Amino acid sequence: MTLILYTYDWLPEFPRGFVRDLRVRWCLEEIDRCYQVATVPAHPKSAEHRMLQPFAQVPAIRDGERTLFESGAILVYLSEGTQLLPDDRKAEIWQWLFAALNTVELSVMHWVSMILAERVPEFFGPPPAADVTAHAKADVDSKLAALQQALGESEWLAGDFSITDIAMVEVLRVVAAEEALEDYPRLAAYVERATSRPAFKKAMADHMAHWQAADAAQAERSAG
Amino acid sequence: MTLILYTYDWLPEFPRGFVRDLRVRWCLEEIDRCYQVATVPAHPKSAEHRMLQPFAQVPAIRDGERTLFESGAILVYLSEGTQLLPDDRKAEIWQWLFAALNTVELSVMHWVSMILAERVPEFFGPPPAADVTAHAKADVDSKLAALQQALGESEWLAGDFSITDIAMVEVLRVVAAEEALEDYPRLAAYVERATSRPAFKKAMADHMAHWQAADAAQAERSAG
Repeated sequence: MTLILYTYDWLPEFPRGFVRDLRVRWCLEEIDRCYQVATVPAHPKSAEHRMLQPFAQVPAIRDGERTLFESGAILVYLSEGTQLLPDDRKAEIWQWLFAALNTVELSVMHWVSMILAERVPEFFGPPPAADVTAHAKADVDSKLAALQQALGESEWLAGDFSITDIAMVEVLRVVAAEEALEDYPRLAAYVERATSRPAFKKAMADHMAHWQAADAAQAERSAG
Repeated sequence: MTLILYTYDWLPEFPRGFVRDLRVRWCLEEIDRCYQVATVPAHPKSAEHRMLQPFAQVPAIRDGERTLFESGAILVYLSEGTQLLPDDRKAEIWQWLFAALNTVELSVMHWVSMILAERVPEFFGPPPAADVTAHAKADVDSKLAALQQALGESEWLAGDFSITDIAMVEVLRVVAAEEALEDYPRLAAYVERATSRPAFKKAMADHMAHWQAADAAQAERSAG
């Protein structure tokens, strides 16, 4: 079965060369694997697209019966056991893969999103200068709405409780702390369910105890 | 050998409960693994800290001879083969793990970074309202400087060329397109080296050909 790579049907000039299907194409060329391209409409987004990719982003792939989204996950899925992800350097490769996508790209996209909003407001909404925080919040809300839809009535995101739920709930707790999860009752319940686990409670208690001990140590130094 | 988890020595009240060591603590409790906590100074950051974690963030772990950073990579490393990352749901778990860290958190941190800059300017610099793009760019520069230092004289980030280099170079190409990689000659050379690979050239040619075909299809629809 030929692998199918999904990207947009059409885009204006400015993002060409930077659409994330390129990451997957590159990987497929490196491992010398054939693929076909299929498209989803960029504007407006379709229900079929959201079935394939809950955030209505690209890329996604179809490999036989399996569909998969998130370019990072697709890179790992395609390259396992190849020279691009050899077993003996796995941990180191993951480390830098997350550094790319969760440290460097997180920072780069923050900056570039502002440049793009000013340069092509017809695509990214009005420039954020007027209310930069509201602009950023609107983007968060679009992600939360999609996530709540994707979670549906499930307890956890990927079958039984997994590391994914740890990562996602830790992100959502930040949103909850700003009282911004109130419009997403299923996400609020998901956070509640996860943070009711004994393992979370123990971890949080130890985490907070660490800072209390740090306070005590500091007070002692000040007094000494 | 007991696992060592690194976090900060002391932090003020506001980020307590949200420092990313919590993700790792939670995972360790779920898999019932013992660990010890060690600290790095939060202010000022130390050279030892940067040896362990090039971006001078936390958490990092030490497991025998191995050190590892990036909470996403640590979650995967610790949970492989456990009930938190079973082999038969691996691809799906990876997918949602990247959705958490590269889609949802990317958006959430963009928003929260602005809230924090206003709330605690003594930690995060002045509020970004004055020049929000310059504020975001300064954060990018801190990441690029650390990355260039970490790359050093190496050709690639984790031994031979791997999926990590695909992901990182795709992020850096966005920076290069804004002519903001000029102060980082080793990173510019890294991007040049990666994008000279035949696989990248073929992928980019096919990517661009896709958009040209999309233009032609659109022109035909308009004419018809």
